[in-house]
Amino acid sequence: MSATGIDPVLNRHPELEDLRSRLTAFLDTHLPSPVRENDSRPDWLALRARASAAGLTGIDVASPEGRGPAGRVAQGMAMFLAGQRDCDAREIFSTGHAAMPLRYGSPALSQQTHEQAVAAGKLVGVASSEPHSGSDLRGFRTLLVDHGDHFVLSGTKGLISRVEEAYGFVVFCKLVDRRDVGVIDLRTVPLSAVWVPMDTKGVLTETTDPLGMRGWSFGHLHFVDTRLDKDFLLGEPGDGRLIFDSHFSAWRLMMSLVCLGAAAAAIQESMARTSSRSVGRMPLAAIPSVAARLGTAAAEVEAATAWCFSLLERIDRGDIDVAACSAAKALATDAAYRAVDLALQLHGSEGYTRHTPMEKRLRDIRGLRIADGPNDTLYSVLAHSLLTEHQQTEEAQLLAHH
Amino acid sequence: MSATGIDPVLNRHPELEDLRSRLTAFLDTHLPSPVRENDSRPDWLALRARASAAGLTGIDVASPEGRGPAGRVAQGMAMFLAGQRDCDAREIFSTGHAAMPLRYGSPALSQQTHEQAVAAGKLVGVASSEPHSGSDLRGFRTLLVDHGDHFVLSGTKGLISRVEEAYGFVVFCKLVDRRDVGVIDLRTVPLSAVWVPMDTKGVLTETTDPLGMRGWSFGHLHFVDTRLDKDFLLGEPGDGRLIFDSHFSAWRLMMSLVCLGAAAAAIQESMARTSSRSVGRMPLAAIPSVAARLGTAAAEVEAATAWCFSLLERIDRGDIDVAACSAAKALATDAAYRAVDLALQLHGSEGYTRHTPMEKRLRDIRGLRIADGPNDTLYSVLAHSLLTEHQQTEEAQLLAHH
Amino acid sequence: MSATGIDPVLNRHPELEDLRSRLTAFLDTHLPSPVRENDSRPDWLALRARASAAGLTGIDVASPEGRGPAGRVAQGMAMFLAGQRDCDAREIFSTGHAAMPLRYGSPALSQQTHEQAVAAGKLVGVASSEPHSGSDLRGFRTLLVDHGDHFVLSGTKGLISRVEEAYGFVVFCKLVDRRDVGVIDLRTVPLSAVWVPMDTKGVLTETTDPLGMRGWSFGHLHFVDTRLDKDFLLGEPGDGRLIFDSHFSAWRLMMSLVCLGAAAAAIQESMARTSSRSVGRMPLAAIPSVAARLGTAAAEVEAATAWCFSLLERIDRGDIDVAACSAAKALATDAAYRAVDLALQLHGSEGYTRHTPMEKRLRDIRGLRIADGPNDTLYSVLAHSLLTEHQQTEEAQLLAHH
Amino acid sequence: MSATGIDPVLNRHPELEDLRSRLTAFLDTHLPSPVRENDSRPDWLALRARASAAGLTGIDVASPEGRGPAGRVAQGMAMFLAGQRDCDAREIFSTGHAAMPLRYGSPALSQQTHEQAVAAGKLVGVASSEPHSGSDLRGFRTLLVDHGDHFVLSGTKGLISRVEEAYGFVVFCKLVDRRDVGVIDLRTVPLSAVWVPMDTKGVLTETTDPLGMRGWSFGHLHFVDTRLDKDFLLGEPGDGRLIFDSHFSAWRLMMSLVCLGAAAAAIQESMARTSSRSVGRMPLAAIPSVAARLGTAAAEVEAATAWCFSLLERIDRGDIDVAACSAAKALATDAAYRAVDLALQLHGSEGYTRHTPMEKRLRDIRGLRIADGPNDTLYSVLAHSLLTEHQQTEEAQLLAHH
Repeated sequence: MSATGIDPVLNRHPELEDLRSRLTAFLDTHLPSPVRENDSRPDWLALRARASAAGLTGIDVASPEGRGPAGRVAQGMAMFLAGQRDCDAREIFSTGHAAMPLRYGSPALSQQTHEQAVAAGKLVGVASSEPHSGSDLRGFRTLLVDHGDHFVLSGTKGLISRVEEAYGFVVFCKLVDRRDVGVIDLRTVPLSAVWVPMDTKGVLTETTDPLGMRGWSFGHLHFVDTRLDKDFLLGEPGDGRLIFDSHFSAWRLMMSLVCLGAAAAAIQESMARTSSRSVGRMPLAAIPSVAARLGTAAAEVEAATAWCFSLLERIDRGDIDVAACSAAKALATDAAYRAVDLALQLHGSEGYTRHTPMEKRLRDIRGLRIADGPNDTLYSVLAHSLLTEHQQTEEAQLLAHH
Repeated sequence: MSATGIDPVLNRHPELEDLRSRLTAFLDTHLPSPVRENDSRPDWLALRARASAAGLTGIDVASPEGRGPAGRVAQGMAMFLAGQRDCDAREIFSTGHAAMPLRYGSPALSQQTHEQAVAAGKLVGVASSEPHSGSDLRGFRTLLVDHGDHFVLSGTKGLISRVEEAYGFVVFCKLVDRRDVGVIDLRTVPLSAVWVPMDTKGVLTETTDPLGMRGWSFGHLHFVDTRLDKDFLLGEPGDGRLIFDSHFSAWRLMMSLVCLGAAAAAIQESMARTSSRSVGRMPLAAIPSVAARLGTAAAEVEAATAWCFSLLERIDRGDIDVAACSAAKALATDAAYRAVDLALQLHGSEGYTRHTPMEKRLRDIRGLRIADGPNDTLYSVLAHSLLTEHQQTEEAQLLAHH
Repeated sequence: MSATGIDPVLNRHPELEDLRSRLTAFLDTHLPSPVRENDSRPDWLALRARASAAGLTGIDVASPEGRGPAGRVAQGMAMFLAGQRDCDAREIFSTGHAAMPLRYGSPALSQQTHEQAVAAGKLVGVASSEPHSGSDLRGFRTLLVDHGDHFVLSGTKGLISRVEEAYGFVVFCKLVDRRDVGVIDLRTVPLSAVWVPMDTKGVLTETTDPLGMRGWSFGHLHFVDTRLDKDFLLGEPGDGRLIFDSHFSAWRLMMSLVCLGAAAAAIQESMARTSSRSVGRMPLAAIPSVAARLGTAAAEVEAATAWCFSLLERIDRGDIDVAACSAAKALATDAAYRAVDLALQLHGSEGYTRHTPMEKRLRDIRGLRIADGPNDTLYSVLAHSLLTEHQQTEEAQLLAHH
Repeated sequence: MSATGIDPVLNRHPELEDLRSRLTAFLDTHLPSPVRENDSRPDWLALRARASAAGLTGIDVASPEGRGPAGRVAQGMAMFLAGQRDCDAREIFSTGHAAMPLRYGSPALSQQTHEQAVAAGKLVGVASSEPHSGSDLRGFRTLLVDHGDHFVLSGTKGLISRVEEAYGFVVFCKLVDRRDVGVIDLRTVPLSAVWVPMDTKGVLTETTDPLGMRGWSFGHLHFVDTRLDKDFLLGEPGDGRLIFDSHFSAWRLMMSLVCLGAAAAAIQESMARTSSRSVGRMPLAAIPSVAARLGTAAAEVEAATAWCFSLLERIDRGDIDVAACSAAKALATDAAYRAVDLALQLHGSEGYTRHTPMEKRLRDIRGLRIADGPNDTLYSVLAHSLLTEHQQTEEAQLLAHH
């Protein structure tokens, strides 16, 4: 029996079979085939609202109405299935960044987020990277000044996704007392996270034109003396890094599974095409060089998928390995990219046009090799974690010998 | 002293220094910086006409007016310099496919091509691949029927470039006597090449929307009982493969050098960017992981450039190695692609937008890994040639022992 | 918390914790540190006998004495731990090819194998590939002739492992009736598997000198009119392919985990070394290019490990995906090889000597990229399986529309 | 016509044809086929002496007897031809490190070196890297103390080649006045280079056992208060870096061409093997996956070869690009390694034994990816050079605008 894609995870979690059927039925109805750039663009927000109405959002968060098997593995499965249709479908079923106000917000904010993002299908964004420091968290300059009874936010974030669709953003920033502004060295201030509704005064958006990932807007957010309720702080002051690491560990795996779903679809479509095409009188699929390369791509996609689900299972058991999740995102999106690049090549010049989904996948996944942490950096995160582990073992052994 | 880019070839051919200056001056005037998708698109045909007026086209063909050092190496240098500005600039200085009617056409056709394509800067296209057989030359079905005093062409070609800009096409086809139509097995008929002016009755164009290479139109050509002068046949009946191999050997190196120029520019821009950006307090360029990867990319680009020019020098000496030229195109465009992919990554999310030339280069070079022969096939051509060589040596040795 | 190596699998299978401790204790006692070529070579067979005495063999087969948690996942964990010490340690805990007579032998053969291979720690080998056909099963020429009351085996197998240490071999061959010899086309005869005790008359061994994997002998087996009991046939006549596929699916994952263990150890040792060495005044481990590459290698090793255990879990549930297991072996050994190559490089010229375990690992894993199926072939197996799946789906859909 | 290996360079330099014939004849007589580990090891020093007697050493240095076309290109051709037989053959024709005393030694030393190393075929070694700093030149601690009328050398060098065969070594060290010992910060002292005859008192050798490159001894050199003539200093005090860069630029290209020769031979042998072997009924060589991979390997080897010769031509014209030569060595040895790894794989388990030259090539080239500068470092050298170039251009432009 076949053991590819989500089959192995369903095999381990038979209780997810029903959810799988419902997700597949939803997609078959509303997004029956992979999106091609030449098609009219699906109305993603409307699809998300429909999914929400069908009880297919918020899968990974505890659900008061008991909508079925909650959990990250279940959510990951939804992302993989969505990715098979299109990378931009990543928001149809996703709790996404709403997970942060849900988990770390005040009771009122958490409750309101549940109503808006899970029940009504609205979208939450995250504003982390900054134009001049990229993903270097310590270098962030967006300032949240504590004025006693309120906060004032200022700074610029970008490039980020969903600047026009999200109804609110989680913004990572440096929280500083009014008296320390201009005095304190910002690099020494720990990160905080704050909730910013988009209808707050002083929030400006600016969009730009990216290579891919164009289902959702992309651009900068400017905060000009944006006054915020102090209740909007997520967690405690200085909890930003912890919230970031914990949230993005799961989120990066979700994005990985979107891309792996897209890659799996690309491989399947290449199988279909190569078995119907021929070079000379030989069907393309029977040509060993094609088989060897498709097989290698499929193996890489399978291994990455197995790793991602294995890490989601750990998170569901309450155990987060930030470094492994980071590296898994790099590995998964890189493997998916190579698979799609090969699939495009096997589609020949047709694959290069907007009449097949290949070129869109290539552009979309290219973006996810940068978004949510550039891959080269994420690989290093794993190395540094292994190194720290090694040094701790070393120290423990030294102590044990005394 | 630096030995990168075209420096080594200038060092070997100091007589090209003057041409280099003129080409650079032309580009500095008309295309001062690399093209970004967000810029207004240059009028490429107009640029070509200007280059023609400045005596900067037809570099690789014997020039009656003695316009300076003719030759493939000189032309290759022009392609590299053009590629540094944009991949779509590949037609500014190129003789391109006009080389075929120039070399293999009747005296009248050759003369007319010189006037049109070299002197007046008009564009010639090539129609080789077919929708159902890709680049498998033997599987071509485009039919040129000999009706005694004229030819009739029918069939479909695509996907091909310049379907709207070229004033005429060289079409590869199967030449069959009227009485053999429907009788003969087309796979046994050798290729021929014929000249087709675009204003001939029965030539239909259809354009499509590709991922990149959008400076020039892209699509299909349909020939519906297109009546052609018998004088339009290039070479003799059945010379198609010979013309194809000889022409594309040089052409593939030209396309390679366009991409290598683009890659060299991408590496230089990454150097500029990484020396002005920092992670933490360290300039990006001082980070060894960046240096090691940029260095590897640069080395690959240099080696491919050295190989291409070395093969062009051989062609200038009258010696064409079809297999080596084919594989060099694959190696060069693959190396250029990896370099540009890295450069885009080093530009972070900005590199992913249409505000830098990176994403355009990525899309353009992606196309040139398929166009003019898919790279995977081209690598195999070299292997098969080495194998044949081995077998011939073997046979020669067997004979020598008798 | 860390989620690398076997931690995730222990997390899913807490019942294996005790076995893990016992295996680790055994290794710490008898093979405390990784083997280097310059060390005196461990007496591997003696180690295996000790492991057997300690109840640490036969982990993956149903154990009459109830030695603890039986299963492939448990066995795979043992292989990973052994591999961390040395690739040649792969036989210490392994049931290995004894699994075939245990599962498919007559009751007497099965019982005897349990006594010899599991209880007494003797070794069983497999003779599959042949000098002139490599791993092409259909091309095998080793002949098992049915003489009514006995079989006669003739042919040559190689290159294979353990020709001097194994007390018996499972030999894959073509079973032919005496009357059909010389008449029947051997390529049309399905494979059979037969048990051959090494002390049978007419079994000759010939050893050769390989690059690595030298803990166990390596060479050819010649069968010269070897008379065998008919009871020695495994399964039914023609069951060879089924036995092969089913056995090697698990076995390839075991070999993968040996290599992944070795790679994990190599990464850890590189961490130790790079944190104690410096270039200029900077510790090597703090150099981002080292971190990025070690992180990538670690990620590849982790993903392959996750995939292998995920497939072993399926086998334990009775579900074998031959194609996925084949490709996983290719992916795992290739990833392990890259990791060890990097680790050797990071150890500099010292890594190139026989004073570190790196060069031995490189040589050993190089062999396992060929042994048990050359990797390039194994990738293709997955592609062909996906293709067949696609065609079956296609046919099912066609039928469904009628 | 074929354009592979050294054909293109002969095409550009027809005057080398005679030398090529003499080199080939010499090799055909004394080393008719590639060396396999199982063969008895050639007496390399004796071969070198014979080559010297035949006037085939010292090709790259001005020769008083006018032995034919002197130059680096000619020498590089000799290295490529030698490498086709064996990587350890790299010293048969090589001037090697004798080039340093020849070029930078006192007239007496230069004259003596010519007699010993060129005319009599003796061997000179180089002692650069140190156990604790690897190839980090600034971190060297080997001390040359100026005692007024003589030098005293102390320190340890390794791992280095030819510790037992060379009659003298060029040692890179820090030259310090007697009064500054223990006072001065050694990292600030520029490198010097000194000649050390092996029969000097206080020179101790220690050998070790490497993975490959075993044709010549490998180990450490210890200098214990070694008293040296002041006339043995090469160039001026502090000239070490200059001598190192200039010498190793050419030397690295020579080592590259040895490896590329070995890779070219491996590809040719794979062609021979794959055309005589079959899988099923198909000859291996006709299998596209084999062709595509062999073709890619061949293309990489060709491009690296073209680049190396192009850089040697520049050196012959007096123009050294240290950074390009460094990166070319990394690219060439990496490409050669991949080619040999593939060739070994295509030879199946036989390729893994000592009966084919494949495993020896793999081990030898593995060493040359570390020796003479670890490849990862060498790639970075090119990046840093491009970066410096960029910054200089930048500064020049800034100045030009003032």
